[in-house]
Amino acid sequence: MMTIKRPTFVINEGIARANIRRMAEKANANGTIFRPHFKTHQSKDVGDWFRQEGVKQITVSSVSMAQYFASHGWDDITIAFPYNPLEIDEINELASKIKLNVQVESREALDHLLVTASSALGYFIKIDIGTRRTGLLHNQSDIIQDLINRQSDKVSFKGLLSHAGHSYNARSPRKILEMHEDSMKVIKLIQSKLDQEVFISYGDTPSCSTLEKFDGIDEIRAGNFVFYDIQQTNIGSCSMEDIAVAVFCPVVAVHHNRDEAVIYGGAIHLSKDHIKRGNDDVYFGEVVTLTPSGWEYQGDAILDRVSQEHGIIKGSERFFRNLRVGDVVGILPAHSCLTANLASAYYNLSGERYEKMENNFY
Amino acid sequence: MMTIKRPTFVINEGIARANIRRMAEKANANGTIFRPHFKTHQSKDVGDWFRQEGVKQITVSSVSMAQYFASHGWDDITIAFPYNPLEIDEINELASKIKLNVQVESREALDHLLVTASSALGYFIKIDIGTRRTGLLHNQSDIIQDLINRQSDKVSFKGLLSHAGHSYNARSPRKILEMHEDSMKVIKLIQSKLDQEVFISYGDTPSCSTLEKFDGIDEIRAGNFVFYDIQQTNIGSCSMEDIAVAVFCPVVAVHHNRDEAVIYGGAIHLSKDHIKRGNDDVYFGEVVTLTPSGWEYQGDAILDRVSQEHGIIKGSERFFRNLRVGDVVGILPAHSCLTANLASAYYNLSGERYEKMENNFY
Repeated sequence: MMTIKRPTFVINEGIARANIRRMAEKANANGTIFRPHFKTHQSKDVGDWFRQEGVKQITVSSVSMAQYFASHGWDDITIAFPYNPLEIDEINELASKIKLNVQVESREALDHLLVTASSALGYFIKIDIGTRRTGLLHNQSDIIQDLINRQSDKVSFKGLLSHAGHSYNARSPRKILEMHEDSMKVIKLIQSKLDQEVFISYGDTPSCSTLEKFDGIDEIRAGNFVFYDIQQTNIGSCSMEDIAVAVFCPVVAVHHNRDEAVIYGGAIHLSKDHIKRGNDDVYFGEVVTLTPSGWEYQGDAILDRVSQEHGIIKGSERFFRNLRVGDVVGILPAHSCLTANLASAYYNLSGERYEKMENNFY
Repeated sequence: MMTIKRPTFVINEGIARANIRRMAEKANANGTIFRPHFKTHQSKDVGDWFRQEGVKQITVSSVSMAQYFASHGWDDITIAFPYNPLEIDEINELASKIKLNVQVESREALDHLLVTASSALGYFIKIDIGTRRTGLLHNQSDIIQDLINRQSDKVSFKGLLSHAGHSYNARSPRKILEMHEDSMKVIKLIQSKLDQEVFISYGDTPSCSTLEKFDGIDEIRAGNFVFYDIQQTNIGSCSMEDIAVAVFCPVVAVHHNRDEAVIYGGAIHLSKDHIKRGNDDVYFGEVVTLTPSGWEYQGDAILDRVSQEHGIIKGSERFFRNLRVGDVVGILPAHSCLTANLASAYYNLSGERYEKMENNFY
């Protein structure tokens, strides 16, 4: 075991690798391309675990992230985020070196790309299948057809890209499946109005974790599943045993009079993302007990609230009976993507360091 | 103006300096020590603006932050966070170089410090005046007295430290004042039960911004006021014109059919902290229009939701009429401390860079 002094993001490598293998095998069994989203881990070392499962194509959510992974040998990358004209220089530079796809959803964006692209690159057209975040709707197939038709020798249409982000509102595998069936109806409706067959890229961890068959889908782009988290167990995508990460946090105050303790581990380590509990109440993670081989979930303490550096854990009298200042507990995060993003590096259970991309927000 | 390509944290230096000056003058007029909390900005450059207003003593929220500011010439630092025994080596090393105070609230923490401290350092005893985050309660004055009595030649008692964090629930200056009066009653009650007069350190931006008199307070530790944010305008601590920071974000998609746009700027740039709106609804910031001299708040668009890199802004038809992909808008953050923490550097309106502490979460 490593020495913990401050909040530390720890990966159980065995669990993460099993999560990757399971998804890779499922994609293979379906004959579907597996283009995992690397925004969850942002790490060349974790990326290598995917490579060892045969992954050659990846998804990222920013140009900076594409640059990072390209510098670590990934040469087929889709940036699944609306094309940002202000980064065309960086996109052109990348596209001159690797196979790069971007995402468009309007004529103004595509026209900018057509005029300014200096190297060959591909574009996906973003379809909104119910999340209402961004993308074109099923009744905008004329715009979609126009965006397809406008491709040039250099800038070529690759397919339709969608993300069932609204599956995060599901609370059971049955509900996820129901939402997925609705999503596929929208995709098929759009396809039926287009002049040609198109390639379908599809995302989201709940659907990809729950479905056994990927009928009508050419490529899956799930990302969160490598680590999973409490939101995903609540949605029904995974079990507690599939969660591959915990933030190890020192206990700095114990309030036996109200079965609470303060940990060094707050919003700047775990994020303010949360899990809903009842109507108006939320919590920020589950507390686990550390063991020589990792951690153990006992379901008797939660991360009840967070401020900048403080976390307040709340639990059973039994949990707090033997807790002392100077102990270390683990927090299974509400949302592992945001928690991982806050860490400047990860560690395995033996204390070995995994490199990750530097914070590129300047 | 600088060139914006990605989400960029921008400080209007004139506003920030005015915020600092106002608080420094108020503390001076009251004869109160001004020991501002530097966790909001975590920047040596912003720290210099405080130094120019005569500030010599500061507050931080972690040992790492104390190390950073000590390396930039600050030699009188209070770590206003429960003493973490696992960092005693770092604390001892710092205390051998500068005047350092830590915070304790239990005998087990203080005893650890008494046994392991190798250099002179001070301790404040944390009092819970209503926030229920951490600290000793008014009916625990016997424990407080015991913690005072246990000081040694090396480890000396400095005073009582409290933070009226529950003032963040206020929604008017009158309510802040009411909460402050209750807090002072708790402090006086504790004082009346102790054998000696004690030094009172007091925090929180709402109280320090609103109060004109700091009667009964020896030192104030507010921090957020340097930047302020939308939460503070809602509480009643400041006006929109006092907010000194905005995150400049590229517009990457415009949905005229629903008066929404997608910006490159999400939870990893702004944090998931939010402002309540009505019963069950929240939003993540106010949208401002950029001008040659900074930005202009018009109150016609908000940051409605965020995912990892996407932000969705929502507003009036007028706001969206002329908005284009490739434009840049500003976001006044819900909570500037968490947003600033996510940035790897800050910029002023001319595009000059301010250094900040590296993310120390490993």
